[in-house]
Amino acid sequence: MTAETGAPDPQEAASHPVTGLDEVVHQRVRLGILTIAHEARRAEFGYLRTQLDLTAGNLSKHLSVLEAAGLIEVEKGYAGKRGRTWITLTAAGDTALADEIARLKLLIARVETTDTLEGR
Amino acid sequence: MTAETGAPDPQEAASHPVTGLDEVVHQRVRLGILTIAHEARRAEFGYLRTQLDLTAGNLSKHLSVLEAAGLIEVEKGYAGKRGRTWITLTAAGDTALADEIARLKLLIARVETTDTLEGR
Repeated sequence: MTAETGAPDPQEAASHPVTGLDEVVHQRVRLGILTIAHEARRAEFGYLRTQLDLTAGNLSKHLSVLEAAGLIEVEKGYAGKRGRTWITLTAAGDTALADEIARLKLLIARVETTDTLEGR
Repeated sequence: MTAETGAPDPQEAASHPVTGLDEVVHQRVRLGILTIAHEARRAEFGYLRTQLDLTAGNLSKHLSVLEAAGLIEVEKGYAGKRGRTWITLTAAGDTALADEIARLKLLIARVETTDTLEGR
């Protein structure tokens, strides 16, 4: 359909780039966790908390969502006598992040095409 | 701090790109609404609903959030005898979308730098 009238537009693509975004991955905090785990390969809980400016409870909640979806692995251990929790991206997590990034690039290209066409 | 040990790293940037993302704008459906309104200048309710594959109730809920934040204007009128609702991006909405896109580009650059450094 065209935007103003709602009439059919046969040249139009079937769906918008955002319809393919996975909310498990796209959510702001979780996208941050996946990005840091992607960079660091193995990220420590306290590091994630500082980088993303989160409470421990909020970070734990989002880690549980990602772990349940199979996108990260959570490993508990020790650094000296102190308990530590490490987060690692799974292969599925790496694929999901790559998919998110590819869709965001499509979205950005659409926004920037409009800017260019209209000389903004 | 470094990712593995939690030790201080003086060369590290203060915060991660996702900490600056606004959840009003970043949320999947709302990002879609803002992008379409940006492209179309004036988008019709039924068009948004089809493009984003939403129920009317779900779309209305997200439009209310964007309207309350001053990012869109919602205008009711007629096309012939049929009631229609049009959505327009405000100047604040245009700025908020541009800010989101700029932050997403920083995030993508970080992910892709890691890929390049590690030869993925």
